[in-house]
Amino acid sequence: MLGEIIAVGEEVLSGDVINSNAAYISSQLSEIGVFCRFHTVVGDIEEDIIEQLDQACQRSKCIVLCGGLGPTKDDLTKEAVARYLKKPLYEDLEMRAQIDSWFKGRHQAPTENNYKQALMIEGGEPLKNGNGTAPGVYYNHQGIHIFLLPGPQGELKPMFENCVLPRMNKNIDKSIQTVTFRMIDIGESKAVTILDDLMGASDRLIVAPYAKLREVHIKVTSIEDTAKENEVAIQPIRDEIYRRLGQFIYNETDKELVEVVLDKLKEKNQTLSVAESCTGGLLSNFIVAIPGSSAVFKEGIVSYSNDSKIHRLMVPSDLLKMHGAVSEEVAKAMATGVSQTLETDYSVSITGIAGPDGGTPEKPVGLVYIAIKTPNTVLVKEYNFMGSRQKIREQSAKSALIDLWHML
Amino acid sequence: MLGEIIAVGEEVLSGDVINSNAAYISSQLSEIGVFCRFHTVVGDIEEDIIEQLDQACQRSKCIVLCGGLGPTKDDLTKEAVARYLKKPLYEDLEMRAQIDSWFKGRHQAPTENNYKQALMIEGGEPLKNGNGTAPGVYYNHQGIHIFLLPGPQGELKPMFENCVLPRMNKNIDKSIQTVTFRMIDIGESKAVTILDDLMGASDRLIVAPYAKLREVHIKVTSIEDTAKENEVAIQPIRDEIYRRLGQFIYNETDKELVEVVLDKLKEKNQTLSVAESCTGGLLSNFIVAIPGSSAVFKEGIVSYSNDSKIHRLMVPSDLLKMHGAVSEEVAKAMATGVSQTLETDYSVSITGIAGPDGGTPEKPVGLVYIAIKTPNTVLVKEYNFMGSRQKIREQSAKSALIDLWHML
Repeated sequence: MLGEIIAVGEEVLSGDVINSNAAYISSQLSEIGVFCRFHTVVGDIEEDIIEQLDQACQRSKCIVLCGGLGPTKDDLTKEAVARYLKKPLYEDLEMRAQIDSWFKGRHQAPTENNYKQALMIEGGEPLKNGNGTAPGVYYNHQGIHIFLLPGPQGELKPMFENCVLPRMNKNIDKSIQTVTFRMIDIGESKAVTILDDLMGASDRLIVAPYAKLREVHIKVTSIEDTAKENEVAIQPIRDEIYRRLGQFIYNETDKELVEVVLDKLKEKNQTLSVAESCTGGLLSNFIVAIPGSSAVFKEGIVSYSNDSKIHRLMVPSDLLKMHGAVSEEVAKAMATGVSQTLETDYSVSITGIAGPDGGTPEKPVGLVYIAIKTPNTVLVKEYNFMGSRQKIREQSAKSALIDLWHML
Repeated sequence: MLGEIIAVGEEVLSGDVINSNAAYISSQLSEIGVFCRFHTVVGDIEEDIIEQLDQACQRSKCIVLCGGLGPTKDDLTKEAVARYLKKPLYEDLEMRAQIDSWFKGRHQAPTENNYKQALMIEGGEPLKNGNGTAPGVYYNHQGIHIFLLPGPQGELKPMFENCVLPRMNKNIDKSIQTVTFRMIDIGESKAVTILDDLMGASDRLIVAPYAKLREVHIKVTSIEDTAKENEVAIQPIRDEIYRRLGQFIYNETDKELVEVVLDKLKEKNQTLSVAESCTGGLLSNFIVAIPGSSAVFKEGIVSYSNDSKIHRLMVPSDLLKMHGAVSEEVAKAMATGVSQTLETDYSVSITGIAGPDGGTPEKPVGLVYIAIKTPNTVLVKEYNFMGSRQKIREQSAKSALIDLWHML
């Protein structure tokens, strides 16, 4: 089934807000077999919303409009859709009561314009919003499924899961299965060259590559009548991908590299600490973002001055003088130093020049040393990254995870 | 002038890549007076690209297509645009030579399909790509400015700045000025209510609110014939905004809060250290993301275990036993402890429960303590945040910056 997303809002059109709703909705819809052929963004202009909706109705069977359900006079999505469908708006008493109770729960009083959000399209179904005052709408327009959802992600996501997915699931007669093969140590173009004959071969078995931060993901989507048939369709291509690229695959489910690394440490009952210079907490942040990481991760030191390297990490000041803070020797001393106070089994250190200033001909911007300390040894690798300060820092933190994964 | 952006690529349609190019291009174009009324995303399907381009040509004067300029058979943007314009493609020898030299510089050999990227649209102008092998195209179609740019941001952004902006600047007869008033300690709905009569009053002086992470930005855009006239138009509204909301404004240019905080510390010639628990390096990362932060920021400790709090931050173990790691007392001890080893003038500590697990009725998920140590005192604040683990961590790190700003 073809899907389509229309985001409504000046803040998206002006570039002040990135349209991440469209990415979320698309990827969720594709998992149940609704594939988007168009995304559009329009402003809070009634005729533009109507024009896009009209086009969407001519080419798609599932249309999600998001944004423009707020209480202000600029919020026009419901009004535009009602006009397109030639249906009047009426005040839904249940939705009005919900708005009242939402404000009551917060010890606030609604203003008159909040009740605009209780207006519903005749013949449509109101969709409850558990996280805000804007209800959504579902309307079946001659077999075309039209959904109106609020723009803020904290409201949109739960409503999408609770209101859109169950209604669409009922209308899909195909089964979909997706497997993502997550790879490191190989670039996208090389992976694509090796898998070239498998891609674009079939509409029911889609093989697509995605370049991520120092990773390549190969996503295989099978569309058959039953889950069993999908299993059967995917197995030979899984075998083939492993035969050709198995050495690069670190995971086949939805687990990110950092989760896989933490799982491995947890299995071994071992602990981790981190010392960062140029990445400034980015690696620690990757780790702490995962719930339950405290079982493994003991501490991180953002050692952003030589003083800190000397006093916290016990890096000898002679070593800093002789080799400089960005050197193999200091990376090694940082990794050893950070692991000593709390006696962690593994430790990682990163020191480098993220730029834009601070580079020299011998030590240019992008030069980064990463050290991994295991219970038995310390390994240091030298990297030369390209790009902005942010890009160099992200690549460094990710490379440290990749290096750690190799040592586990 | 009306602008329009067409992103081409299955990876955007499928939601695997967020369309941040559109946000970047829109916001850049708006600064020179080209306002986007539509964004679209289409897949690598020639007829879809042509359909969108045809519509765009009917309503917009500046059209930027991005993506689909790669070397594979799926990359069809140039082919589709040439077909729409009824112009043949030819091999541009200078672009071919550039591709050769790009690979030579990397000690690699181009494959035959790389030369597909040297194909140009007759009557168009090739646009050089300093960061990849895909040149862009500029085509003036009966006064409509059509640009084709590659999708990867590292290639698109420099080409946009070097090739699109100068060409469009020549074609704009209006002057644009934008001022953003950045505010803290006030919510969007309250700010909007207070400024309601100033918004939507004029097409030439646009006042628009944007909600950011614990901030509200009010953007004022003036469109007049000259820069001088813009100054004159903006001044009274600036005065009015300051009169009504001046107490909440921390900055009026493009400087983020973290930069303002670092500038203040630099002015005072004072230093900073940070101790984080639940935020896990997020606050340190905000700081280190700013070039030159090393003049002020000495170190950050991600103290993710009680052991680390005791041994690195000298938090008395009795205090941890008596009050728990998430408490006013421990926040205070963390801030004091982290500042002692390197004797920093200011320090910040964050300890809290980010969830999803670990909450209790007395200490629920979202409870966070933030302490700010100045040369004279230590202040602790208690917060109760809502939302996901990530959301709670982001709000905590940002609130710490706001608290620090207040103490400076």
